[in-house]
Amino acid sequence: MADEQKLTTRAEDFSAWYNEVVLRAALADYSPVRGCMVIRPNGYGIWERMQRALDDMFKATGVRNAYFPLFIPESFLSREAEHVEGFAPETAVVTHGGGKKLDEPLVVRPTSETIIYAMFAKWVQSYRDLPLLINQWANVVRWEMRTRLFLRTLEFLWQEGHTAHATHDEAEAEARLILGVYRRFMEEWMAMPVITGLKTESEKFAGALRTYACEAMMQDNKALQAGTSHNLGQNFARAFDVTFQTEAAGRGGAGGGAGTDYVWNTSWGVSTRMIGGLVMTHGDDVGIRIPPRLAPTELVIVPIYRNDEQRAQVLEAADRVRDDLASGAAAIRAQVDRRDNMTPGAKYFDWELQGVPLRMELGPRDLDKQQGVLVRRDTREKQPVALAQAAGTARTLLDTIQRDMHAAALARREANSVRGPITAARFREIMDGEGAFVYAGWCGSAACEARIKEETKATIRVLPDPEFRSADPPQSCLACGERATAEALWAKAY
Amino acid sequence: MADEQKLTTRAEDFSAWYNEVVLRAALADYSPVRGCMVIRPNGYGIWERMQRALDDMFKATGVRNAYFPLFIPESFLSREAEHVEGFAPETAVVTHGGGKKLDEPLVVRPTSETIIYAMFAKWVQSYRDLPLLINQWANVVRWEMRTRLFLRTLEFLWQEGHTAHATHDEAEAEARLILGVYRRFMEEWMAMPVITGLKTESEKFAGALRTYACEAMMQDNKALQAGTSHNLGQNFARAFDVTFQTEAAGRGGAGGGAGTDYVWNTSWGVSTRMIGGLVMTHGDDVGIRIPPRLAPTELVIVPIYRNDEQRAQVLEAADRVRDDLASGAAAIRAQVDRRDNMTPGAKYFDWELQGVPLRMELGPRDLDKQQGVLVRRDTREKQPVALAQAAGTARTLLDTIQRDMHAAALARREANSVRGPITAARFREIMDGEGAFVYAGWCGSAACEARIKEETKATIRVLPDPEFRSADPPQSCLACGERATAEALWAKAY
Repeated sequence: MADEQKLTTRAEDFSAWYNEVVLRAALADYSPVRGCMVIRPNGYGIWERMQRALDDMFKATGVRNAYFPLFIPESFLSREAEHVEGFAPETAVVTHGGGKKLDEPLVVRPTSETIIYAMFAKWVQSYRDLPLLINQWANVVRWEMRTRLFLRTLEFLWQEGHTAHATHDEAEAEARLILGVYRRFMEEWMAMPVITGLKTESEKFAGALRTYACEAMMQDNKALQAGTSHNLGQNFARAFDVTFQTEAAGRGGAGGGAGTDYVWNTSWGVSTRMIGGLVMTHGDDVGIRIPPRLAPTELVIVPIYRNDEQRAQVLEAADRVRDDLASGAAAIRAQVDRRDNMTPGAKYFDWELQGVPLRMELGPRDLDKQQGVLVRRDTREKQPVALAQAAGTARTLLDTIQRDMHAAALARREANSVRGPITAARFREIMDGEGAFVYAGWCGSAACEARIKEETKATIRVLPDPEFRSADPPQSCLACGERATAEALWAKAY
Repeated sequence: MADEQKLTTRAEDFSAWYNEVVLRAALADYSPVRGCMVIRPNGYGIWERMQRALDDMFKATGVRNAYFPLFIPESFLSREAEHVEGFAPETAVVTHGGGKKLDEPLVVRPTSETIIYAMFAKWVQSYRDLPLLINQWANVVRWEMRTRLFLRTLEFLWQEGHTAHATHDEAEAEARLILGVYRRFMEEWMAMPVITGLKTESEKFAGALRTYACEAMMQDNKALQAGTSHNLGQNFARAFDVTFQTEAAGRGGAGGGAGTDYVWNTSWGVSTRMIGGLVMTHGDDVGIRIPPRLAPTELVIVPIYRNDEQRAQVLEAADRVRDDLASGAAAIRAQVDRRDNMTPGAKYFDWELQGVPLRMELGPRDLDKQQGVLVRRDTREKQPVALAQAAGTARTLLDTIQRDMHAAALARREANSVRGPITAARFREIMDGEGAFVYAGWCGSAACEARIKEETKATIRVLPDPEFRSADPPQSCLACGERATAEALWAKAY
């Protein structure tokens, strides 16, 4: 801490830069509990805006929120064979309550399929009860050994959606619908472009039929899995006996037969991990950069003065400007930095570290001209603005910043993506070096996937959706050279 | 379930009525985990509106949200002597994580003073860092043996505010400020009048200097503690070494001395228990009644038709009315009940059970007259309304309902409150019978308080704030007959 002013640069050590910027921008802090973090107000304010935006999007599709218990009886986890295999090794277990040993230990939820579908079995009777569309905002615990702030912690905050449908196709459509919601949120709110697609068998959710994911490129060219949506088939419905009277049976129509069927489920989630993604997508060597739509404060006014008289005059004007910015159609989330123990320069530094998208510098000479100076956080460009036009100009600029941040991230990703024929040797060279998103062929064999992972640490992130596939699809498998059955996106990942 | 239509009445069995109405209005359900409930969408929707309103009120006072770990090292709990005594017996304890026995067991937070003040010790250095005003929305676990839906469950959702101040008086002012926020929220949003005041030593929070509370009367004349605000003094600051450089020291002024002091803390919380309070304050023998400001749906339109042609015509009109209600200044949260497998009568019954404040009945004959029929849930009064005036009329009516529900609850409480000289025998008779809020004298002795509790199960809910005290204060202690030093509010409680 000899020089408080300088962050490690991204080029020097991306990982050290990330930890420093998260701590110094006061997004989060280490806690006294191993692997658990504290989300500080600056970080939680971003999470609140993420929650609000996603929640509105979910509700627009008919989803309603509910809350299910934190504790899951250990036996529940075992009912779905793949699920328990995937999650049991990383659970936290409550063995004592109220001073007594429990008859059956309780697992702190690592995810809530089992407890939620046990309830669905009570609530769903008939096709009329379907679709059932439920979401929960909650904390979950996974006993990770190596943790990183936001990216991988023992406890994290997330939302988990859980739905039940009458048919496979409706469940599939729901899983895809939510994947689209996630993509739209990440692109339009986080300004973070993503590749969507299907996970391979080895990477899918424990207990799912199919897992879809959004994968984003961080500035070290590694992938971050930022959201997943699962078609669970009837796996959990069978395990928890979630059945319904079919419409045919209900109407006494033909094909009634027994007249009941298992429901088809989906589950889907995004978490506070996205905040880590935001930092690693947009941060630079002076701090984080928050896209305006997710910024708790969009614009900060820094008053400049040399004496008490100027101070009174400038602060009064600053308050008026802030009220003007906040009101009307612009509705800008603005604040005035009134701290009187810091120079304007120190304040600029502080707000740039914290990533506030726009700042207005306001001093006595500006006031004489009835203007302020706007400074963009993303490009650090300055421009004077007449105070009478400040609200409209700032709103336009914030919209521009939002778009430009997305465009810059997209350009960066595409510049670091590799398509077309590639040898295994070249692939290894890339993964040993700068890294990249590599689109290459895959024969469909888990053995080939595993071999590449062992040799290079790169994995198949997704089999990309059509809009992300190469115009000229790869013909042969990256690993074995046999005929490719799919194009795969390969990268190292968090 | 022989007759699905009838609830047990409040007069027959208040407790049975409560459980039935919570389950049948689909506010909550029992879960497979002992003592843990599921909050269903109807209940969670009320909680979301409670959260939004309170969160805005907290933020208006400068509070910011954050998130702290679920797990607390067992040793942390022990650092404040009274605190551990109060909470250790009812903790859930994680002894195993990731398949291994932990070196130190982790307690699932029953409340977060210890973990939060451990972080405050890192964050607070100087008087310039104060006041520090933090809130957290979270789940907590207390190992209760006898549980009731919403009122007392192993796990519940709440908010816990934690603040640090430079002086005792500032902390005291904060604790009182938030008590006022709670009172205002309960009166203006929940339409639930409360008595505020000070808890006695035997009822205060474990580790607090002073506890203030809001106490509401339920329809069985029992009290519900609906929110508490604690002045924690320097108890936790000493336990977790939360110190700051004082302003005098910072400025090198006189009285610097060592120049550091312990901070003064407050903590304060309300929980999903309030939903139980809402039900027991406003529910009647046909269902719950939600005050309009907390109702996820304020108005439901029930279309009436006899054939497909009428159906198409009425539904189209209903959608238009809903859009009209939702738009503009009225901004009414309205929905159309499109279910086609239920009669209008069955729908009325269902919405009355669920407590939606206002319903509009809309049929072909109404449409001929360009009108609908509005029915208040609280009084079940009907009135026709011209569709062109529906939005304004409905908004006015919803505001009236909100006020009337508060007035009715207040009148009910006052009619069941007893003031003035009272004998111990009469007091016991009241508590053995209908119950009441009894304002009686107290000598200040814990022994007198304990004796009354043992004999009647009634406790001192609070020593009421001045505005709730009797004009003619009681002169003698209810228990011992000695000179009273305070007026106390006595009642049986949840």
